Amino acid sequence: MTPASDDASVAVSNPAEDLEDLALSDDYALNPAFVEMVVDAADRSDTARLRKLLDALHPADIADLLGFLNASIREELIPLLTSDELAETLSELDGNIREEVLEQVAPASLALAIGEMDSDDAADVVDDLEGPKRGQVLAAMSDADRASIENSLSHGDETAGRLMQREVLAAPQFWTVEQTIEHVRTAGDDLPELFFDVYIVDPSNKPLGAAALSLLLRSPREALLSQIMEPITEIPVDMDQEEVAYIFDKYHLISAPVVDPGGRLVGQITVDDIVGVIQEESAEDMLALAGVSDAGRGATVVDVTRSRFWWLLINLGTAILASSVIAIFQGSIAKLAALAVISPIAASMGGNAGTQTVTVAVRALATKELNAANLVAAVWREIAVGVFNGVAFAIVMGVVTELWFHNPMMALIAALAMVINLFVAAVAGILIPLGLDRMGFDPAASSVVFLTTVTDCVGFFSFLGLATLILLHQ
Amino acid sequence: MTPASDDASVAVSNPAEDLEDLALSDDYALNPAFVEMVVDAADRSDTARLRKLLDALHPADIADLLGFLNASIREELIPLLTSDELAETLSELDGNIREEVLEQVAPASLALAIGEMDSDDAADVVDDLEGPKRGQVLAAMSDADRASIENSLSHGDETAGRLMQREVLAAPQFWTVEQTIEHVRTAGDDLPELFFDVYIVDPSNKPLGAAALSLLLRSPREALLSQIMEPITEIPVDMDQEEVAYIFDKYHLISAPVVDPGGRLVGQITVDDIVGVIQEESAEDMLALAGVSDAGRGATVVDVTRSRFWWLLINLGTAILASSVIAIFQGSIAKLAALAVISPIAASMGGNAGTQTVTVAVRALATKELNAANLVAAVWREIAVGVFNGVAFAIVMGVVTELWFHNPMMALIAALAMVINLFVAAVAGILIPLGLDRMGFDPAASSVVFLTTVTDCVGFFSFLGLATLILLHQ
Repeated sequence: MTPASDDASVAVSNPAEDLEDLALSDDYALNPAFVEMVVDAADRSDTARLRKLLDALHPADIADLLGFLNASIREELIPLLTSDELAETLSELDGNIREEVLEQVAPASLALAIGEMDSDDAADVVDDLEGPKRGQVLAAMSDADRASIENSLSHGDETAGRLMQREVLAAPQFWTVEQTIEHVRTAGDDLPELFFDVYIVDPSNKPLGAAALSLLLRSPREALLSQIMEPITEIPVDMDQEEVAYIFDKYHLISAPVVDPGGRLVGQITVDDIVGVIQEESAEDMLALAGVSDAGRGATVVDVTRSRFWWLLINLGTAILASSVIAIFQGSIAKLAALAVISPIAASMGGNAGTQTVTVAVRALATKELNAANLVAAVWREIAVGVFNGVAFAIVMGVVTELWFHNPMMALIAALAMVINLFVAAVAGILIPLGLDRMGFDPAASSVVFLTTVTDCVGFFSFLGLATLILLHQ
Repeated sequence: MTPASDDASVAVSNPAEDLEDLALSDDYALNPAFVEMVVDAADRSDTARLRKLLDALHPADIADLLGFLNASIREELIPLLTSDELAETLSELDGNIREEVLEQVAPASLALAIGEMDSDDAADVVDDLEGPKRGQVLAAMSDADRASIENSLSHGDETAGRLMQREVLAAPQFWTVEQTIEHVRTAGDDLPELFFDVYIVDPSNKPLGAAALSLLLRSPREALLSQIMEPITEIPVDMDQEEVAYIFDKYHLISAPVVDPGGRLVGQITVDDIVGVIQEESAEDMLALAGVSDAGRGATVVDVTRSRFWWLLINLGTAILASSVIAIFQGSIAKLAALAVISPIAASMGGNAGTQTVTVAVRALATKELNAANLVAAVWREIAVGVFNGVAFAIVMGVVTELWFHNPMMALIAALAMVINLFVAAVAGILIPLGLDRMGFDPAASSVVFLTTVTDCVGFFSFLGLATLILLHQ
């Protein structure tokens, strides 16, 4: 896949190049005009043309393309893919669409494609296969491939064991650089397709160290691996993928050995798998804060509606709770309707300020920048920020209320309610995610509901309560 | 850095190992107890002990540690770092703390440390140096290092040119595998410390292809590079780092050649730099949605207060706007205070539903899953979800209102307002980020303000307006 060239003469003399140039826009995303061409060719059932269009795409772009098409056009395209393309496309596809493709392709073709994948991708795809078809596909595979996949699937979802590939380059510490290079040249299929390190292991297959290929190439031919190897970070096979990603990011790892509970080398994880995990985990936090899950491409409207319904229902509960606080003060509002005008402002500001705090805290917890060592300082800092902004906005709010309603006492009450609510928002905004995290819950998933319940109730209660106490009973 | 071992006998016989085991908790984050030990030693000004504690840490953990300490303890630690450690720690540190460390270290020591970094990290650090010190540090460096850094700094912030390192392994296509391996062994310092690919270039230094080191090792010694090379994705030197990250993620790249506008190879970007960019960019989106920027560790309370103030001020504006909608209906509220109780519910639900839509849209825009090819379908889908959930919550809301106030007409109005507002929330939630993106603004940064302005105003207006029209003037 070469980027678009503006050399028109080459493009004219070579029509295949021409399509490749057209396939991607300047930002390397699929060109909408190219998607249109695929739709047109599919509508005319012009398979020769479709095949030509597919030729212009990298498998990652084919996967992307399938996401932009509807189910019937996808069904036209799938049979046109080579086994290679099918293998690579399946590894790239999102949940819903992958399941659909898996249903369409015959077990024998699937077995062939899956046999070409690295063991981690292969296991992922087999895991998506439903009941009888899964058995048929596994039966059609070689014994070695099947055993490898079943081993991979024996590890929990989202663990290092599922991320790793079993193929590794391992060598004893007494080998020389030359011996190791010669081994690679003759080992053939036992090695992964792409690898970056040689792991040095002891006789019981426990990793002792690693040497990057570039280090291997740079070292004298007669040097022993034990002389050039560097320390490694071992990944336990049952480690959560989020932890694995944290370690890769922190130590800038390219690959790392995975070990079983006995400390023996069982596979390796490479950074290209980690990039996907990082994208996934940070998307999860971002979506969770807004109360949505990623229903994925190809999800139906009903799926999406249902996935959002529950969060909204919980929020309806908190909104009704806040309204019942207002209901306590119906009598006051009946006497002075202006109270109903002013009361939502402090509540809304508390919600926004608290969401700022929650988001920063969730992020800091995810990156482990916030832990027991600086917890107290972090809490005090948020409270100080809440008080400072509380005082600032109390002044603004007091001035606005006075200008609007020419009622100095109401202005004072609105200002007081603002200080109280921004203070409470800061305290709740930092303590809620910390508390959820301490109790083992995901702070991204539910902090905001608890927060807005607090800030809405306190916001309405502080303003309407003070107003009732001071303004109407003075 | 080896993970904590539970082999107590080894730990007792080897006190250095003991500290290493203590340094990190099970989740590979710094152990709060270890941080405490550092603080204690610093309080006693026990530099021997501090140095021993530092020995137990990887430079990435030293950087992390500095983030957990206050400024005076940091000042005690910095002089204890070796030049190597200082170099690696500086590359890892966050903005505020890095600036502080840079101020503390003498120009000559800085020049030494920076000279040990890869050109991309070196440029980053020099960019953080203030006025005269920058000149002093550059003057103390070798001509080659200085030229390399000045070249790097000539590229815009957050571009490929800033991310890349200038050191690459390049070879002509007529070289054999053996010749290339021999070249690596003798080239020495001109090569990057760590590399993964050899780039094959033509006589004018334009990249023709690449061979992964593992492919090089696996190929016959006499094979020509032109025979084994694979196609590459070239990165233009002025490409935005977000685009670069997208390409790396999409094509699972480990490294990629960077080319100047003439198509000549000028450097390479490796995936370990990209992991940092991905973390950064997704954190930016998540924080922007909540209206905060990452003030970073070491930011003062005043910095943080100020950074959050402006977003809150804008939100105060939208809250006042919403209140002025309520103010229109003060007369109605005075007649029927129950209206003030019910009115915030539809507004709040609209805000939440719209935020769900905005977040999904922002994410889809960032991953390029949403573009002109599926825009219309995405808009219709969101509207359908909005209508479905609108109807569902209208029923719930109607029932709740009737049970609460025993007023069927008010229940009907509350239900109607809910449908209207969830429909409007869906339309606004998808069109606002799409519109901002189309106009070249960051949809993450301001969608939510516009959205809540719409949902608050429409929420209050639809309910209070209908109530005034139907309930009070019937």
